[in-house]
This record gives sequence, structure tokens and C-alpha cells, in this order.
Amino acid sequence: MTLVGAGPGDPELITVRGQRILREADVLVYDDLVHPALIELTGRAKKIYVGKRAGRHCMPQEETTALLVREAQAGQHVVRLKGGDPLVFGRGGEEAQALAEAGIPCEIVPGVTAAIAAGAMAGVPLTHREHASAVVFVTGHECAKAEGRVDWAALAKTGATLCIYMGVRRLPHIATALKAGGLAETTPVAVVTNATLPTQVVRIATLADAEMLAPELAGKPALIIVGEVVRLAEVLAQAATRVAMTV
Amino acid sequence: MTLVGAGPGDPELITVRGQRILREADVLVYDDLVHPALIELTGRAKKIYVGKRAGRHCMPQEETTALLVREAQAGQHVVRLKGGDPLVFGRGGEEAQALAEAGIPCEIVPGVTAAIAAGAMAGVPLTHREHASAVVFVTGHECAKAEGRVDWAALAKTGATLCIYMGVRRLPHIATALKAGGLAETTPVAVVTNATLPTQVVRIATLADAEMLAPELAGKPALIIVGEVVRLAEVLAQAATRVAMTV
Repeated sequence: MTLVGAGPGDPELITVRGQRILREADVLVYDDLVHPALIELTGRAKKIYVGKRAGRHCMPQEETTALLVREAQAGQHVVRLKGGDPLVFGRGGEEAQALAEAGIPCEIVPGVTAAIAAGAMAGVPLTHREHASAVVFVTGHECAKAEGRVDWAALAKTGATLCIYMGVRRLPHIATALKAGGLAETTPVAVVTNATLPTQVVRIATLADAEMLAPELAGKPALIIVGEVVRLAEVLAQAATRVAMTV
Repeated sequence: MTLVGAGPGDPELITVRGQRILREADVLVYDDLVHPALIELTGRAKKIYVGKRAGRHCMPQEETTALLVREAQAGQHVVRLKGGDPLVFGRGGEEAQALAEAGIPCEIVPGVTAAIAAGAMAGVPLTHREHASAVVFVTGHECAKAEGRVDWAALAKTGATLCIYMGVRRLPHIATALKAGGLAETTPVAVVTNATLPTQVVRIATLADAEMLAPELAGKPALIIVGEVVRLAEVLAQAATRVAMTV
């Protein structure tokens, strides 16, 4: 059993190891946001889709876990492919935990998570000696039982670059909370949708007007970067060429 | 000109794209902590080492930048290979900035950063629905001009998992600051040295006794993870198989 991070979107941004393991799979269990080219790499492997639709993020996933255990116990090399990195907002930790409890050895192959890719694509250094000594990855979409656990005011006080996953729908709320926590209205914000794919769009705003982007972004996978380092995007992005689809 | 993230150590954890670009390089400019197998991929390319020794992190790097500009202007495909991801504690942002200012187009290929890899190797989910809605990557080794910019107390109050880069030498200071900021002495700590390499070692401690690890860790590249999610390492690590060297 192997838990593999698919990377941020472009199939060429999976690791070499992840690619090799896909080719060796007997059974592939995959999610939304996984590129079809990666699924094709598994050739004749049995392919099982277990993606969650928007709004279902907090449904119990006992079924997926039971499926992984069943297939692995049948002696198959099961590969669980997850967008980004398996242990960053992917519920991979819960799956690995369930597998471990069932006594199934599970290797974890890390991946390039969305925030890292969004930084590279938008030309935003997530850390910078002169601007940010820390970067935070935080979810903007918490399930009901965890609602309120993110302390936006505390995050605002860290001085770190903030990378917000799944935050588009709650962007107005988040922007308000960050301003209440002390971030200036002029703090720059980058929103990267479909990072590393040909459909990628980078939008730059400020905390004061970022919420106006919400309607146009609705329903798209987006990564929001908040912090002074976003100012460097103008310098870097003009020189940056984009990653093209090549697989 | 391409700025490529080499990934965390194991040469198989570079991206497929990064590997391909290394094979196409005319000139390779590389750092410490880059695996020899990746350097070999460049074949007959001109290879230039510009690594910084410990204690020289804050030396001006005008020379490296000037070198990149000169080689790129000579019409060569220059690949700047950096450990982990180029824009996370790698000064890649500064290099990209200098290149942009010199009018040299620069593509950035993201990589798996050390904290992500350390989580996968130690069996620590950096985020978890029930334990952590955010994760922070922070440097434990700031250069003189930035000294004091990391607000450890503010970070302690976020409830996030903390991943500390280059923090071994200052671990006693950091542990004290985090406790002063409100983290319990019993907060678990994982220290992963040489993550993803055959020499990898994972040590588990608590904030109360973590500093005792410092002498044995001295001089080794280490990633420190602080937070409740570290408790899951016991469950996951017993089932996890380690990434083996395969390139």
C-alpha cells in the first residue's frame, strides 16, 4: 500500500518516485483534482474513483478506508493517489492512521503541495530574508466540527506569509478577520486558480478589495497568498515563463 | 534559465519536470544538500558549485547572482538547482529577483520542501482535521539583520503545527520561547535528520526535553516538528516503510 502525492496539477510535477509507483500499481484509488495523465500511467490497473464533491468534505470516509484495507488485504499493490501532498489538507493522515490500525504497511510518498506551486507560478517567494521568516498553510474551509479552530487574528500577528487553501467561498470573512487581527488593508493578496495547469489564472489584489474576486473564483480550486512577499510577484512574474503541459 | 527545486534529499523525490530539465542543462549551478545522483543527470553540462558553508548563510551572494546572469547571457541553458523548493528558505526569491531585474526570463520548478518530506518520513500528518488546521514553516536560523523577526510567542498561539528549518543550534532558545508563548512542556516534538536519505534518523521528544537532542544533532541537516500531530507518528511510523535510495 502506498499513499502518493500527485502534486499540484501539472502531471509533470509529480515526483519521479510517485510516477514509478503509479506504473507498478495493481489498484489505483484516486480523488478529484488528479490529472488524467497520471491515472493513465497505471495502465491496466483497476481504477477506483472516491472523490468528494464540493460540500461533502466532511462526510465520513469510512468507505474509502474500508476499500483500501480490503484491496490491500487481497494482496494487491494498492496506490492511493491524492492531489498535492498526502499529509497537507488531504485527510491522508486519517487514511494512513486507519491503515496502520488495520496492520497494513503504508509508505508515504510526499508531493508538491498547492501553496508551494502557487508561489512558483505567481512569482511569490513564500519566504524571503527581508520580508517573511515564516509561511503558514491554513485551511479556509473547515468542517462543522472544527469550525472556529482557525484563529485568524493569531495568524495575522505572526508576520508570516499566509497561504489559504479552499478559502474562496469564505474569502470575505477571512479578509475581515485578518484586518481585525491587525493586517493593513493594503496588504497584498494573490489568488492563483488552477495552479500549474494551462487554465491557471493569477490575480493580485489587496485585503481591502480581495473579496470582490470571490464571485469570479467561485467553484474553482484556488490558493490565496497574503503577505508583503506578494509585491515581488510583479517583478518575478514578468520574467517567469509558465510551466507548460508536457506529459 | 530555470530555477529547480531538488526536493528533500532522495534523488527520486525531485519532480519529473525537474529531472527532465537537469538532463537538458548546459550549465548547472548547485548548492550544498543536493544529491550527487542529480548532478550526474546533467551529463556533460558545465557544473559550478556555489554552496554556502555553515555560518556563511548571511554572506552576500552577489557573486552567485552575477554568475547566473553571465552564464545565461552567454546563451546557455542555465539550471540553478536548490535543495527542497527554491522559494522556501532557499534565497531563490532573491536570485529570481536579480535575474528578473537583469531581464533574464526564469522559470521556477517547485520542489518537495524538507518539512513536507519530514512529515511523510516520520509519519506525522502536518495538518489533521482533529488536531491542526494550519502548519507553519519557520526558520530557526535568522541572519543578523533579521534577528528577532520570528515571534515565537505569536506562533505558539496559532495552534498550528510548527516546522522549524535550520533550528538545531538554537533549539534550547526556541523551546524556551515556545513554552513562554503558552505551549505545554508536554507538547511532542519530532526531529528528523537527513530526511529521505538512508542516514535518516527520527527522534521523538517533548518541548521539555527536546534541547537534550541538540548535541547529537549538531551539524546535521534537521527539521523539527512541534505539535500534537507528532503523537500520530507512533501509530503511523510502525506501519510506514521508509523510502529507499533507488536512483
